[in-house]
Amino acid sequence: MPPGTRRQVVLAARPVGIPQAEHFALTESPLPALREGEFLVRNEFLSVEPAMRGWVNAAANYSDPVGIGEVMRSFAAGTVVASRHAQYAEGERVMGMLGWQDYAICDGRGIRRKVREADLPLSLSLGVLGLNGVTAYFALTEIGQPRPGDLVVVSTAAGSVGSAVGQIAKLMGCRTLGIAGGAVKAKLCVEAFGYDAALDYRAPDFAEALGRACACGVNVYFDNTSGAISDAVLPHLARHARVVVCGTASVASWAPWPQGPRVERHLLNKAARMEGFLVWDYEHRYEEAITRLAQWVRSGALRYREEILDGLASAPDAIAGLYRGENLGKRLIRVDPQA
Amino acid sequence: MPPGTRRQVVLAARPVGIPQAEHFALTESPLPALREGEFLVRNEFLSVEPAMRGWVNAAANYSDPVGIGEVMRSFAAGTVVASRHAQYAEGERVMGMLGWQDYAICDGRGIRRKVREADLPLSLSLGVLGLNGVTAYFALTEIGQPRPGDLVVVSTAAGSVGSAVGQIAKLMGCRTLGIAGGAVKAKLCVEAFGYDAALDYRAPDFAEALGRACACGVNVYFDNTSGAISDAVLPHLARHARVVVCGTASVASWAPWPQGPRVERHLLNKAARMEGFLVWDYEHRYEEAITRLAQWVRSGALRYREEILDGLASAPDAIAGLYRGENLGKRLIRVDPQA
Repeated sequence: MPPGTRRQVVLAARPVGIPQAEHFALTESPLPALREGEFLVRNEFLSVEPAMRGWVNAAANYSDPVGIGEVMRSFAAGTVVASRHAQYAEGERVMGMLGWQDYAICDGRGIRRKVREADLPLSLSLGVLGLNGVTAYFALTEIGQPRPGDLVVVSTAAGSVGSAVGQIAKLMGCRTLGIAGGAVKAKLCVEAFGYDAALDYRAPDFAEALGRACACGVNVYFDNTSGAISDAVLPHLARHARVVVCGTASVASWAPWPQGPRVERHLLNKAARMEGFLVWDYEHRYEEAITRLAQWVRSGALRYREEILDGLASAPDAIAGLYRGENLGKRLIRVDPQA
Repeated sequence: MPPGTRRQVVLAARPVGIPQAEHFALTESPLPALREGEFLVRNEFLSVEPAMRGWVNAAANYSDPVGIGEVMRSFAAGTVVASRHAQYAEGERVMGMLGWQDYAICDGRGIRRKVREADLPLSLSLGVLGLNGVTAYFALTEIGQPRPGDLVVVSTAAGSVGSAVGQIAKLMGCRTLGIAGGAVKAKLCVEAFGYDAALDYRAPDFAEALGRACACGVNVYFDNTSGAISDAVLPHLARHARVVVCGTASVASWAPWPQGPRVERHLLNKAARMEGFLVWDYEHRYEEAITRLAQWVRSGALRYREEILDGLASAPDAIAGLYRGENLGKRLIRVDPQA
C-alpha cells in the first residue's frame, strides 16, 4: 500500500562545476494518485555517478540540465508497487531514470529495462549490470576494439566502469594496466579486479613508472579522466592506438574551457584515433551486453564492488564525494535502510 | 648520356621548427658509376611539402630525421636514363623518394610507382596524382567517411591536399566549406575548386561567419592545420562527427609542446572521432586511388593548381615559403628550367 507522501531530493541551486550538498534540498510532498497509463515504483537503490555533474550544470551538454526545484535526475532501481499501465505489473523489478526519490510515478518512458536477473541483487542493475557495465562493455569493444595481446590502459581503473573494463579486456586476451588515485585503489586494481599491473597517479615517480610500463606502446587507452593522466598517457600511444573518451572526471569545470597539450601530433604520428563514447548510442543493444555481463558475474569472471550509502539524506553530498575520490566501488544510495 | 657530376641540396644544419634557406646547401659532386641492380633517374620535378619540416626536425616523428650533410629527402619524379636493374628500363617514368638532386641512383627501394599516365603531365605524379591526391582520397573516404548531405569543412582548403578533398567531397554528394588564409585563397576555393562556400580565417568576423556556416553541425572536419582554426571548428561538430587529422601546418614547433583547448569534451558530448592519417598505411592501395583520381582529372571533375619554381637553387627557401603561405597550388621545383 503506497504512502500518502513521497520524499525527494531536488536541485535547489545551480552549481558551477561539481555539485555540493548545498545545491540540493530534501522535500516531502503529497504523492499524487495514479492516472490511467501510469505506475508507481518504490525505489530501492539510487545511483550516484560522475556524469550527474553535467546534468545539473548550465553548460551545453548532451542533455538539458535539471531545472531548479526539480527532482534530481538519476538512475534508480525498484519494484512496481501499483500499476494502471498495461505493460508493467505489480511486483516487477525495473531500472530507469527514476530520480532521487523514494517513490516514482512513471508512464514507462523513463524505464531503461525490466530487471529479469532474479538470481542476482537488484543493485547490480545500477552498476556492473547497468549503465556502468554496459558502458565498459561497448566502449571497450566497439570504440577500443581490443585485440589479444594488446596493452589496454585504463584510468579510474578501480571505478565502477574502469574495474569492469580491465576485467573484460583480460577476458579478451589483453594485457592490462590500471591507473588509479592512491595506493589503496591501485592495490585494489590488481587484487580485486585482476589487472596485470596498476599505478597510483599521485605517486612521485608516476611518469617514469608509466613510461616503463608502456615502453612497447599503448594499444587502447580507456580514459575516464581527461586532464593530467591523459596528458601522461598520450605520448605512449602505439601505432593505430584507440583512445576511448568515456569521461572527463579530472576536469572540475569546462567554464572557462581548460587548456592542455595539443593531441593532434600524437594522433597524426601514430595514425591513432580518439573517440567519444555515449552509451545512449547502444540502447538497442543493452540486453546483448547485460546477458554476457551477467554470465561473467555468475561464473565469477567479472567482479564488482559496491559502496552503499544509507538513506535519501546521504544523497546531497554523494556526487561531491565521488569527485573527492572517497568511494571504493559503485556508489549507491539505499532508499530505505530498513529494507 | 649521364653527366660526370650531380648537384644536390643537402641539409647543412638542423633547424628547430620550420627549415629556412640557411639550413640547406647546394653541392656538386662526382656521379658514381651504376652498380649491378642500380639505375639512374634524371629528376624533372622535386616536391616541396609541409611534412618535410618533420623530416629534418630532431623531434620524434614517424620517420628518422635526415642526417646533416645528407641529400634532402623528398619526393621527385623523373625518367630512367640508365639502368642495370631488371625491373626498370631506360625511358620509364618513375616517382619516389628521389631527393632534392638532379640525378638519383636507385636500387628500386625508394620508388613509389612507375608513372603510367602517359597522357598527363609528369608533374601531376607529385600532386593531384601523387601523395597529395592519394592523401586527400583515402583520408577523406576512409577516415572522414563522408555521406551524401554531410557538411565537410576543410582547412588549408586551397592547398594541394585540401583542394582535392573539397572536390572529392562534392563528387560524393557533400556540402563543402573551405577555410583558407586570405581573401585570394578563399576566392580560389569557390571559383577554382568548387567549394560551396569558403572563409578567410584572417578576416575579423571569421568566428561568427564560421558559426553561421556550421549552424547545423560539421559532419567531417578535414584538418591540415591544428591550432587556432581547429579550435574554432571543434565546438561546431555534429553528433558522430569525424575529424581527420592530416597535418598540423599552423603549429610552428612541437618543442615546447603547444597547449590548446582540451578536445575531450567535444568528442564526448558529440560521440565524435578524431583520427590521424598516415598515407603510408594505404601504400597497397595507391593504384586504386590514382586510377580514380586520373579519371576525374581527365574528365575535368578534379581541378588542380601547380606553382613551379625554377632550378635547384630555389629549393632551400621553398619549405619556409610554404609556411609563409605564399604559394597558390602544389609547390614543385623544376630541376632543369631548360627542359
